Amino acid sequence: MSNAKPLPLLDSTADGVVPCCPPLNERPITAEEAETAARMFKALGDPVRLRLFSAVAAHEGGEACVCDISDVGVSQPTVSHHLKKLKEAGLLTSERRGTWVYYRVEPSVLAAMGRLLTTTAPTARAAAV
Amino acid sequence: MSNAKPLPLLDSTADGVVPCCPPLNERPITAEEAETAARMFKALGDPVRLRLFSAVAAHEGGEACVCDISDVGVSQPTVSHHLKKLKEAGLLTSERRGTWVYYRVEPSVLAAMGRLLTTTAPTARAAAV
Repeated sequence: MSNAKPLPLLDSTADGVVPCCPPLNERPITAEEAETAARMFKALGDPVRLRLFSAVAAHEGGEACVCDISDVGVSQPTVSHHLKKLKEAGLLTSERRGTWVYYRVEPSVLAAMGRLLTTTAPTARAAAV
Repeated sequence: MSNAKPLPLLDSTADGVVPCCPPLNERPITAEEAETAARMFKALGDPVRLRLFSAVAAHEGGEACVCDISDVGVSQPTVSHHLKKLKEAGLLTSERRGTWVYYRVEPSVLAAMGRLLTTTAPTARAAAV
C-alpha cells in the first residue's frame, strides 16, 4: 500500500494498531473519542455510501476500484465522491494502479468500530438492574 | 418495558430477535438493508449524540433518565432532543416513570450493529488476494 496512513480510530503502537475506544457501554466515552468515532459513524450514515463501503469490503481481496462497484444505481462521479468521503473519514485507504484507483477497507478499522458496539457483560459494569 | 417496539435493525422471529444484516464484508448489502443500517449509523454520527448514547449504555442497569446524563456540556432540552432522535432511529427505547422518562439501550441492537462491522474471514469470501 503506497499511501496507507494511520487511521483516526486507531492508535499506533510498537506492536501495531489497537482500537482507540472502549465498548460504548463500558464507560461514557470522552468528548475526544466521540469526535473521532462520530466522524466514522457519520460516514456510514448514508445508504449509498454504506452500500459502496460494503461493496468494497465484500469484494475479492477486500479491495475494489470504481470500475468494480458501479452497480448501486448512481453515476460514477457520485461513486467517486462517496469513496473520497469514506477515505477522508479514515474508513478506506486508496492506491493508484495505472488507470484506476483501488480502495481498500482496513479490517482493523472495522474491528475497532465493531468493538465500540460490543456489549460488555452487565455484571461487569453495574450491580443494580 | 411499557412501550418497547420491534427495532428496525432486528427481525422478530418465534425464537426472539435476530440481526437483519450480515457483516458488511460478507456480501454487498442490499438497498433496503442499507436504508435501515444507515439510519442507525447516522444517529451515532454526531459527537454529542454518541456521548449521550454511551452515557445511557454505560449507566447502571443500562438505562438512564435525562437527570442522570446532564454532564456532556449541553442544555437539558438539547439532551432531550438528541435522546428523541436516538429513539426515532431505534437505538433507544423509553419508559415514563413518574416525573422522568427513562431511556434504555437494547443490547440486541448494539449486537446487531456490531455484527455489521464484524470481519468475516477472507478465505470464506474470496480465494484471490
